[in-house]
Amino acid sequence: MKQAKLFKLITNIFKKHGLSTKHSIICSKAILNAELVGAPSHGVSRIASYCNRIKNKVINAKPNIKIKKISSSVTHIDADNAVGFIGADLAINKAIQNAQRTGIGFVAVKNSGHYGLSGYYAEKAAKKGMVAFCFTNAPPAIAPYGAKKTLFGTNPICFAAPTGSKVPFVLDTSVSKINRGKIRRAEQLKKKIPFGVALDKFGKPTNDPKKALDGIQLPIAEYRGSGLAWMIDILSGVLTGGNHSGKVKDPFDDFSGPQNIGHMFIVFKSNLFVKNYNKRIKENIKRIKKLPKLKGVKKIYFPGENKSERFRKNFNKNINIPKNILTIVNNLNKS
Amino acid sequence: MKQAKLFKLITNIFKKHGLSTKHSIICSKAILNAELVGAPSHGVSRIASYCNRIKNKVINAKPNIKIKKISSSVTHIDADNAVGFIGADLAINKAIQNAQRTGIGFVAVKNSGHYGLSGYYAEKAAKKGMVAFCFTNAPPAIAPYGAKKTLFGTNPICFAAPTGSKVPFVLDTSVSKINRGKIRRAEQLKKKIPFGVALDKFGKPTNDPKKALDGIQLPIAEYRGSGLAWMIDILSGVLTGGNHSGKVKDPFDDFSGPQNIGHMFIVFKSNLFVKNYNKRIKENIKRIKKLPKLKGVKKIYFPGENKSERFRKNFNKNINIPKNILTIVNNLNKS
Repeated sequence: MKQAKLFKLITNIFKKHGLSTKHSIICSKAILNAELVGAPSHGVSRIASYCNRIKNKVINAKPNIKIKKISSSVTHIDADNAVGFIGADLAINKAIQNAQRTGIGFVAVKNSGHYGLSGYYAEKAAKKGMVAFCFTNAPPAIAPYGAKKTLFGTNPICFAAPTGSKVPFVLDTSVSKINRGKIRRAEQLKKKIPFGVALDKFGKPTNDPKKALDGIQLPIAEYRGSGLAWMIDILSGVLTGGNHSGKVKDPFDDFSGPQNIGHMFIVFKSNLFVKNYNKRIKENIKRIKKLPKLKGVKKIYFPGENKSERFRKNFNKNINIPKNILTIVNNLNKS
Repeated sequence: MKQAKLFKLITNIFKKHGLSTKHSIICSKAILNAELVGAPSHGVSRIASYCNRIKNKVINAKPNIKIKKISSSVTHIDADNAVGFIGADLAINKAIQNAQRTGIGFVAVKNSGHYGLSGYYAEKAAKKGMVAFCFTNAPPAIAPYGAKKTLFGTNPICFAAPTGSKVPFVLDTSVSKINRGKIRRAEQLKKKIPFGVALDKFGKPTNDPKKALDGIQLPIAEYRGSGLAWMIDILSGVLTGGNHSGKVKDPFDDFSGPQNIGHMFIVFKSNLFVKNYNKRIKENIKRIKKLPKLKGVKKIYFPGENKSERFRKNFNKNINIPKNILTIVNNLNKS
């Protein structure tokens, strides 16, 4: 499907589900970006879940978002259970504004939902000359080290910095061995997942996405990954006023209440401490790219570079939406 | 050796090497803490390297440290190539002060050196009701993903938060599969390291600490660990004015110049966004600790809890310093 057509389709769906034009556009942009960077697990395949939650009144189509100024650098947002993109988009813009004024912007969001790709927000900051951390929690997927029950989300660590070129450094890595969205998409497309990334509910290795979703996803680096997931639960849940310690509801099948996900954005000027940041980061990347490479490796990529290449390649092409997902989406446009 | 005696011995050594009493005490406290928390790789075994660097004039025993106020929240410190502990100690205290005044404290340090355990500084902030990130870079140990030459340090991610109890949450995890200090200590004690954590310089797996130090340490989670190490090189090197992209010199055998390590401390009040932080974090930890446990697991620990237990156990006991290290240290006290 052509990009413009898809954009219109998504916007229409959100409008039909009660969102304002402005909010519908914010959602469409984020979803389209996920398709363009090659992360369809956070793209069109997610729309049905947002709409289902709106229908079940656990996402608020007409949120009354409250912005509380804590200091000239610090802002707290109550997203009133809007679609996650909306609170997050507002928050990153606010954090950038605060940082432009004072050097630093800290923004916490509570009562939010699944906001898509963390890298999408961090990239916005980096493109304005800012360094950014974005943290969010998510429904249970990973067991804390030593436990046999999932509790932490796949809780990504996301960090971005300008590179002195058009393509920012954007590290966006979940602390699970595989992105949960990829497992969901494998389930939708009836494909297998690799062994070694998840266990079934009995603790046995599985390559069946359905069994993995009912079981436990494995964290990176055992207790280290578990510790990082816990850190992110504190940052985005405990500190913000959001849900935490396993209380974030599954967006796909738990309609007993809003998710109340929390996000935390920490943004600061890249030239806060040094005047020649751009020169320094260029040197940094140049020196690393020049290293001797392993056999079969043509180029050393910095985090985010790959995604940016995919974005550029995909930008002028039609977007390929799998048939079963397109059917669902077209039905949502009729409803 | 008794703790008080060891403390006096270390302080004396630093004084004999030209440090002021105040600076010698800062160094002794950090080194003693490493022994007490069970991280001897960052303890007494390191003293010789600091002294060697002072003798070779690549650590400055009488530094002229400059503190530059950037805003009421932001400070930049030029540590003038002091022993790493000194700039770091000043920086974390400054970050805590800034946060007490404005809610947030950002402090970057340049021209510093190896500062021991990141958790030591983060814990100080958490004990004052603050959330803290501490980042530092380090000499080359890990190859960037795709490269066959080391460049990144083992670059720890360190995060601390108050828990509403005496023991703070302190995550302090290097992004290498094993702490470089542990390999060095295995070398000193003529022990083996586990297979799977390092390669020799020809790219072959090794359990020989000497070969591992000459070769490549493996990052956690492949490209994810490599990306995290790169992030920390930007945070503590590129942004602060410190060395970066593999330019940090090895403290043990490269005396061609100062290390110029950079550190970054990000500190903020735990009740910045919520009034009942202590209640929330207690609930968080309680819920996680109550999870059903894997076979053989008696207790789920939060990061830092284990170290704190070791500290309490060790506090009233004699500190065991291996003979060969004690000989080196006693000689330093005579020189």
